[in-house]
Amino acid sequence: MPEELATIGLTGLAVMGRNLARNIARHGHRIAVHNRTASRTTALIEEFGSEGDFVGSESLAGFVAAIERPRAIIVMVKAGEATDAVIDELVPLLDQGDIVVDAGNAHFVDTVRREQALAERGLHFVGAGVSGGEEGALHGPSIMVGGSDLAYERLGPILEGIAAQVDGTPCCTHVGPGGAGHFVKMVHNGIEYADMQLIAESYDLLRSVAGLSPEEIAGVFRDWNDGDLESFLIEITADVLTHTDPDGTPFVDVVRDAAEQKGTGRWTVQSALDLGVPVTGIAEATFARSLSGHTEQRAAARQVFTTDPEPVDLGDRAAFVDDVRAALYASKVVAYAQGFDQMAAGSREHEWGVDLGAMATIWRGGCIIRAQFLDRIREAYAEEPDLTTLLTAEYFAGAVNEGAGAWRRVVALAARAGVPTPAFSSSLAYFDGLRRERLPAALIQVLRDDFGAHTYQRVDREGTFHTDWAGDRSEKEI
Amino acid sequence: MPEELATIGLTGLAVMGRNLARNIARHGHRIAVHNRTASRTTALIEEFGSEGDFVGSESLAGFVAAIERPRAIIVMVKAGEATDAVIDELVPLLDQGDIVVDAGNAHFVDTVRREQALAERGLHFVGAGVSGGEEGALHGPSIMVGGSDLAYERLGPILEGIAAQVDGTPCCTHVGPGGAGHFVKMVHNGIEYADMQLIAESYDLLRSVAGLSPEEIAGVFRDWNDGDLESFLIEITADVLTHTDPDGTPFVDVVRDAAEQKGTGRWTVQSALDLGVPVTGIAEATFARSLSGHTEQRAAARQVFTTDPEPVDLGDRAAFVDDVRAALYASKVVAYAQGFDQMAAGSREHEWGVDLGAMATIWRGGCIIRAQFLDRIREAYAEEPDLTTLLTAEYFAGAVNEGAGAWRRVVALAARAGVPTPAFSSSLAYFDGLRRERLPAALIQVLRDDFGAHTYQRVDREGTFHTDWAGDRSEKEI
Repeated sequence: MPEELATIGLTGLAVMGRNLARNIARHGHRIAVHNRTASRTTALIEEFGSEGDFVGSESLAGFVAAIERPRAIIVMVKAGEATDAVIDELVPLLDQGDIVVDAGNAHFVDTVRREQALAERGLHFVGAGVSGGEEGALHGPSIMVGGSDLAYERLGPILEGIAAQVDGTPCCTHVGPGGAGHFVKMVHNGIEYADMQLIAESYDLLRSVAGLSPEEIAGVFRDWNDGDLESFLIEITADVLTHTDPDGTPFVDVVRDAAEQKGTGRWTVQSALDLGVPVTGIAEATFARSLSGHTEQRAAARQVFTTDPEPVDLGDRAAFVDDVRAALYASKVVAYAQGFDQMAAGSREHEWGVDLGAMATIWRGGCIIRAQFLDRIREAYAEEPDLTTLLTAEYFAGAVNEGAGAWRRVVALAARAGVPTPAFSSSLAYFDGLRRERLPAALIQVLRDDFGAHTYQRVDREGTFHTDWAGDRSEKEI
Repeated sequence: MPEELATIGLTGLAVMGRNLARNIARHGHRIAVHNRTASRTTALIEEFGSEGDFVGSESLAGFVAAIERPRAIIVMVKAGEATDAVIDELVPLLDQGDIVVDAGNAHFVDTVRREQALAERGLHFVGAGVSGGEEGALHGPSIMVGGSDLAYERLGPILEGIAAQVDGTPCCTHVGPGGAGHFVKMVHNGIEYADMQLIAESYDLLRSVAGLSPEEIAGVFRDWNDGDLESFLIEITADVLTHTDPDGTPFVDVVRDAAEQKGTGRWTVQSALDLGVPVTGIAEATFARSLSGHTEQRAAARQVFTTDPEPVDLGDRAAFVDDVRAALYASKVVAYAQGFDQMAAGSREHEWGVDLGAMATIWRGGCIIRAQFLDRIREAYAEEPDLTTLLTAEYFAGAVNEGAGAWRRVVALAARAGVPTPAFSSSLAYFDGLRRERLPAALIQVLRDDFGAHTYQRVDREGTFHTDWAGDRSEKEI
């Protein structure tokens, strides 16, 4: 009698893949597992085989044959060429209707391409964004699933089961066809960049301006975590700030201050530029990381710019700490508003039909940016699905209005104190840009018409116009 | 006896192409001209035939046959598909060693692709960036020429002759092979975006905070144009601000405040992200234009955020105006430093060998960002060709140090007054980021190691480390 077939398969057993496989097995699914280097497969089964029902295969063919049809095969390898290589090897072994799931950090454009290529061969390709790191993969990640309805019918029950659950709702949904899943995962990561940069700026202000120690700042973050700012990132910030090196030095002080990145922040900004969505918070966060890594330029600048700004008068320290909290919250609202705008624009552009409220819902747990905050976003979209901008939703508008004074004081103080707060200040500039009656963009249009005959529109009548700047300055309609 | 052959040819006689052709003819070169719609060719010769030696052809074959070999043919059509279409038509008519010049606003990546494709057929492809708009094309543009040495030998004498001349030096040079010409033209336009945004923010501050009228602001800009800020853009800003609508309304007030863009700002930022160069000034300028165009969001925000910030105490108005000047200048230094960094990085990445000082030299005249300022940049690179950042060159470091106090005051005041100054404040944040001993990027690295096991480096010893955050917090070297 042939061995019972597995419900699902997973190839690529590095730490993320291994943990995801364990999570699936722990939920009672018989899972076929495979890795290019077979020793990893053996090791997984030896170490964790008792957690569930694993079927290990040395060969890819054996692995594929071990899965029930239509097959669902999760690929968890490095994004890029490694993913293409595995897909190329897999495809000849598959049957019509089988499903290949890329659960890596693919660029959504690659996912769109792969989905089309596999569809031509009668296969389903699913780009699934998985957030939550190693721990999330094992205990319940947030899963953003792209691809066809048919594929989700097969996958949904398994993935929703292994995802994080918040208030009984799984942090997993069918985002839309094609590259939708990886697109929203990309924006998620972009927002994560902005979120972390805002936290870093808050920490810097509390330390450099308010003069608090990392230990004291940890306390401040713990307090904040009891309020509106409650989130995984705030929580772990408080946690890591209490950590010290063996000699007692605050751990944050022994770590090199050159932040690295793996590309999703960059991709988010590049995509936003194509979509015409100003994601200034994410852009400043991405650039702040690049800047920190330009150590040669930083060394040169330190040699030349030796005069610090004059000390600023902090006023009441507790009031300042609370101002920073308000500024952080308002800036965070802007960063999320921008990210959700980008998802709306991407969804329109690609006709994915992404439900923004559903994104907020599945980000409430499992993923890196999980927070109470996401529940407010979910509510805002539930109330008004076609919200023009999150900023004007009642709850957020209230929060921003309330925090605006503090936000202004903090940005002003940082500028005077010489503490770089690119994300705080660009978020404030975005807010002011959005709320003002007139912008100096009009002057830019006039200049463009002058030197490049790029034309302009008028406030008082329809049409496109050009002024003969080099001649008699007459205006003509184009 | 056959008619004498033309020295050079130009196809695509819309306004830029027509003016460039006239410029070439005016410099004594016999020029073959062609346009898909032949009436434009006829019109050019009828109207401007007396300016020089034009050879009009109705057919592309006739046009090609009218040019001496190796042929030099300038293509001046819309970037993208139109350019490819013309190239595809041209190629079969050409002989080994002929040169096709794309003088349009191509993306440098397309230029790299086209250059390789034509090289395989024994043809030279030259991507040439031409800046200066219609007027520049006619009276002397700035020309950034990519492509092979051999091609430049043929083209250089003609193009250097028709380019703008500053102190006897032509604003035209051989930038480097492949896409180098269009790459630096792209960065030029990116810098132009930043420059204009900084001017727009200055105008906004003078108007909204200092309460000056457009006419008065024109006077301020005229004053500024007599000093360090002397530049084409400052000059035309002063000029357009004096212009009024027939009923006397300042013209800048009748123009819709939604700035448009044609893509080079976006391309610059996207490329900078790939290169890891923080071009925050250009990014904020590009996003400020997008924001201004989101009229629906702006209308929604205006309805909700009705409370203006409390009035700020301006202090002495003349002092404030001078502060704005200093802030503008310092921010401009940052924007240019970032743009020149991007050129250096692009040149390294593609092995183009771009001479940064030469770029400053050819931008002194002809192009939109032409300014005295460029001469300072030229000098800085002459003194130190491997300058780490323009910011630390003696002259610029001095200017920034001198203006830093004013810069901080202006950014602080703008934040409190609710005037969006994204380019001013992101430039200041960049400066502060570069000059500070420690950045909170260290905290970002710690967080990344916590939730994603992304590892970190230490300040006190070599190596890559990971802390077991979920476990006993022991550190291990990776």
